[in-house]
Amino acid sequence: MSQPPVKDIAFTLRTIAGLDGAMKDGLFPDLSPDLVEAVLEEAARFAAERMAPLDRIGDEEGARFDNGAVTMPAGWRELYRDWIAGGWNALSGPAEYGGQALPTALAAAVAEMWNHASMPFALGPLLTVGAVEAVEKHGSDELKRVYLEKLVSGEWMGTMNLTEPQAGSDLSALRAKAERRDDGSYKIFGQKIYITYGEHDLTDNIVHLVLARLPDAPAGVKGISLFLVPKFLPDDSGAPGRRNDVVCHSIEHKLGIHASPTCTMLFGEGTVEGEEPGAVGFLVGEENRGLACMFTMMNNARLMVGMEGVGLADAAYDKALAYAKERRQGRATRLAPDAEKAGSMSPIVGHPDIARTLLTMKGLTDAARAIAYNCAIATDRARACALIDPAKAGLWQERANLLTPVAKAFATDVACEVASLGIQVHGGMGFVEETGAARLLRNARITPIYEGTNGIQAIDLVTRKIGQSGGEAVSGLFAELSTTLAELSRRNVPEFGETGACLEAGMADLRAATDHLLDLLRSKETDTALAGATPYLRLFALAAGGVWLARGALGEAADDRIALCRFVAENLVPETGALRHRVMSGAASLAAAHDLLFKEGS
Amino acid sequence: MSQPPVKDIAFTLRTIAGLDGAMKDGLFPDLSPDLVEAVLEEAARFAAERMAPLDRIGDEEGARFDNGAVTMPAGWRELYRDWIAGGWNALSGPAEYGGQALPTALAAAVAEMWNHASMPFALGPLLTVGAVEAVEKHGSDELKRVYLEKLVSGEWMGTMNLTEPQAGSDLSALRAKAERRDDGSYKIFGQKIYITYGEHDLTDNIVHLVLARLPDAPAGVKGISLFLVPKFLPDDSGAPGRRNDVVCHSIEHKLGIHASPTCTMLFGEGTVEGEEPGAVGFLVGEENRGLACMFTMMNNARLMVGMEGVGLADAAYDKALAYAKERRQGRATRLAPDAEKAGSMSPIVGHPDIARTLLTMKGLTDAARAIAYNCAIATDRARACALIDPAKAGLWQERANLLTPVAKAFATDVACEVASLGIQVHGGMGFVEETGAARLLRNARITPIYEGTNGIQAIDLVTRKIGQSGGEAVSGLFAELSTTLAELSRRNVPEFGETGACLEAGMADLRAATDHLLDLLRSKETDTALAGATPYLRLFALAAGGVWLARGALGEAADDRIALCRFVAENLVPETGALRHRVMSGAASLAAAHDLLFKEGS
Repeated sequence: MSQPPVKDIAFTLRTIAGLDGAMKDGLFPDLSPDLVEAVLEEAARFAAERMAPLDRIGDEEGARFDNGAVTMPAGWRELYRDWIAGGWNALSGPAEYGGQALPTALAAAVAEMWNHASMPFALGPLLTVGAVEAVEKHGSDELKRVYLEKLVSGEWMGTMNLTEPQAGSDLSALRAKAERRDDGSYKIFGQKIYITYGEHDLTDNIVHLVLARLPDAPAGVKGISLFLVPKFLPDDSGAPGRRNDVVCHSIEHKLGIHASPTCTMLFGEGTVEGEEPGAVGFLVGEENRGLACMFTMMNNARLMVGMEGVGLADAAYDKALAYAKERRQGRATRLAPDAEKAGSMSPIVGHPDIARTLLTMKGLTDAARAIAYNCAIATDRARACALIDPAKAGLWQERANLLTPVAKAFATDVACEVASLGIQVHGGMGFVEETGAARLLRNARITPIYEGTNGIQAIDLVTRKIGQSGGEAVSGLFAELSTTLAELSRRNVPEFGETGACLEAGMADLRAATDHLLDLLRSKETDTALAGATPYLRLFALAAGGVWLARGALGEAADDRIALCRFVAENLVPETGALRHRVMSGAASLAAAHDLLFKEGS
Repeated sequence: MSQPPVKDIAFTLRTIAGLDGAMKDGLFPDLSPDLVEAVLEEAARFAAERMAPLDRIGDEEGARFDNGAVTMPAGWRELYRDWIAGGWNALSGPAEYGGQALPTALAAAVAEMWNHASMPFALGPLLTVGAVEAVEKHGSDELKRVYLEKLVSGEWMGTMNLTEPQAGSDLSALRAKAERRDDGSYKIFGQKIYITYGEHDLTDNIVHLVLARLPDAPAGVKGISLFLVPKFLPDDSGAPGRRNDVVCHSIEHKLGIHASPTCTMLFGEGTVEGEEPGAVGFLVGEENRGLACMFTMMNNARLMVGMEGVGLADAAYDKALAYAKERRQGRATRLAPDAEKAGSMSPIVGHPDIARTLLTMKGLTDAARAIAYNCAIATDRARACALIDPAKAGLWQERANLLTPVAKAFATDVACEVASLGIQVHGGMGFVEETGAARLLRNARITPIYEGTNGIQAIDLVTRKIGQSGGEAVSGLFAELSTTLAELSRRNVPEFGETGACLEAGMADLRAATDHLLDLLRSKETDTALAGATPYLRLFALAAGGVWLARGALGEAADDRIALCRFVAENLVPETGALRHRVMSGAASLAAAHDLLFKEGS
């Protein structure tokens, strides 16, 4: 049975992302190394023993739709029951409503394990966490009283209803309508698509957070409001009462995450007998400020989709490594002292090409994990500093903002790459579904798309994040990364090989590309900057991820950490040269080809 | 309805791969530009009208297995009937047996169209072509008389039976047995897995080519013989007669190519009532020389799997481009003069990040096509020269040998990359199966695995191909590519931008990496060379592919050809710097990490 990589997770959390340091600084008074370890160990056990065995069943059976109802795969109801009974849903929830209020970094680490075991399962609770955040930060006291405890425990699940057929990446085109009612509530009308866990039989109630427009709202994104629309309206005791006018119209037939119902939801179609049409909804936050509320949830959700990427990638690596150690083909000279004997075959891990593939998988995965955990801990530091040192809190929040698109996009791109390489290591077996390697790729393939496509993440990084505080946020990070490089040079450990030189070159590429983009933005050459957005994000991740792996290898100084860091630095980081070239010199040819190849009528 | 890119195909064939030049040189006396055009147009029509509409049905229904029989999807029998009636199966077959004996380059071009329309369909006839080649080159007159005409026309289909559970990439481990019989025939026993089109209901008979060992055969690959084993033994009239002792035991449940039955075949299990166990087989070529016969077929099959890659990639590009022109989201400033109007959304092709994605897809696809067609025409030139100028023929054969692994591996890697990018362009729609974008990725994912994994291709390139004639084959190609760069410099067309400098740098990287690898091989540092094999193949393809696109753009001088070539040179080719670094400096860190991370017990 596949076990999540607890050792790597704890190492990244404590040594690379600096949780140990933060605990020493007194930022997490309720947290101790023992507690961290206990949580990680327990989560690993639940993931491996309860969750992982149901992932294949979930994929094969899928969520089934029949006349508005969605039936989850065999065993999933019991799994979810045990999940909430174990308190896992409440891990990061506010203490006031029964949550454990553990740091985001620990929530991210644990999320990696859930995604390692069964990403389609982990996806549901991720959305509930988003709903908790929205209601906690922006909801009225009444909404908090009625909904929060049940959402925190997981007794009810939450959803995010943004997308409509004509409004995907561009929410300004949103059409769902909201009408004010005399009692202060609203009636919601419209169609939403791609609603994850929009309908299912895991919980007695489902709490939809829905973006819609009021009749007198301004056009565009400044006229969008956020509403809470429960499937069943709670009665006076708080139990699910009468049915609301929201139904699941159908679910999608998808490449992957078959067990995760992707629903088309209809609001206000008059589906409740004896009632006027309109789904009853309650405003969350202020009218016309729905997008701001949504963005509160989205930052965390983006990081958590990044964790889906990391979890899927390390699952793919584990599976491929296990196969490569077992499968024998041909004769290799390395790691196979008996290979010279006539007729004996070596485990394929002994072949340099397979080893390169596996190291590439692990290197990318570990770099993605380092980025994501650094992002998570920046959020935690911002929150911990908020009352004692607001200026410092602001800096950490900017760091979190900066790293969020990188964590989301890089980790999910890596998940697809690593899952694909994992299939390749398996040879013909990888293409056969029973092996499970293909399922990881199928599940991974949604992660670069939802929660803001990776193109959108790159645009966000370039147009909004690197320019924070006039470039101070990004230069602060670069300065911090440079201290690791200085230490690497000072320590002069021979086993690092050319790591220092390769990482220095990577950081130089990153600085040059960043300066170039900031110049373009200052001179309003936005299109030219946007042409380089995607290669820039990759460059950012490779350079920063490489340095963070070096920080970890300096911190723990285990031979295998140093060797992996060196492999990444010498084999993967040098890609930054070409990426810098694309960012700084690629736009002209892009523009020329764009005009000639895609002009209207061609 | 999706139309194969006939214009690009004809351009690559005639201008980049030089079919026009070869026709002028008189190498193909039976071929004229008019005939080439007619064949391409007709094939495009058949692909778009007959084949493409059945691809989705094939995927959804799949091949169905029941008690030894395989039923193909609805409409596929009629499609196959029309396919052979149209003479498409006979395109490259020998004229003596009813074939049209058209050049490999034209067969490759046409194959691209079949794969564009339905790769799982095209896969079956590809294996029949292999069987024709094996029997034509190595079979006895009797085998030719009985089987060739029917295989050439497609009345019967052929298969290749190599893989066994313990013998995949390493055929030395093969265990299937052959026993001599008094009448000169053999009896075959054993299990074969992953047999493509091993059983189906498209034809009255199936002709299996099977690798097996004679009792007194030497160990390893020098003890393997090739046998022809028909499903039904032909009677005196040549019609399918009594059943042979070969059955399909099961078919695989796979990520993609659902309509292509991937069979486990059992030979000699005593399945024919009243007969002694043993599948009756006929030796093809000499005893114990089976691998050489197999390699005859394999070179062509590898190129044709490369064509699967090209066809899938251009299908993915077409689909994504069509969507990007239609789907409107956000406001772009380029290509959307009306975007400034309030509320109006631009086609997403107007966004630089989408344009970059599409141009990357097209650039990689066109480079892969250029490599594959150059490989194909080298085969044709070798064949055409064979009688008049054997030395020249040898040089062309070496060129074909050199380019075959590059064409197979690069084109199939590109297919996976491009299909994945195609999903990304579609956003959420890409993840929904109905769109068809996901199907292309699922189908593409097998192509880097079968017919020799891409790792094996890279090893073949490094250990066997670049060293041909002491490095002359590769330096001859590089010299030829340099003449294109010299012409590019001489012509000095401003629209090429920095194309010349980028391609010169790419070729310099390729030369340096090649020299480095040849040095390593001379000093027997094979493992060090192998560590760089996969990055080297990619470097080779990007540099050579980029130059070939420049040759095309110089030949046709259309603005859009130049613009795409420039995009490839300035945006994609610069990756060669990092690849060269990996080839020349990556092995040390690979070896260190290999020993530390994968040692036994770790």
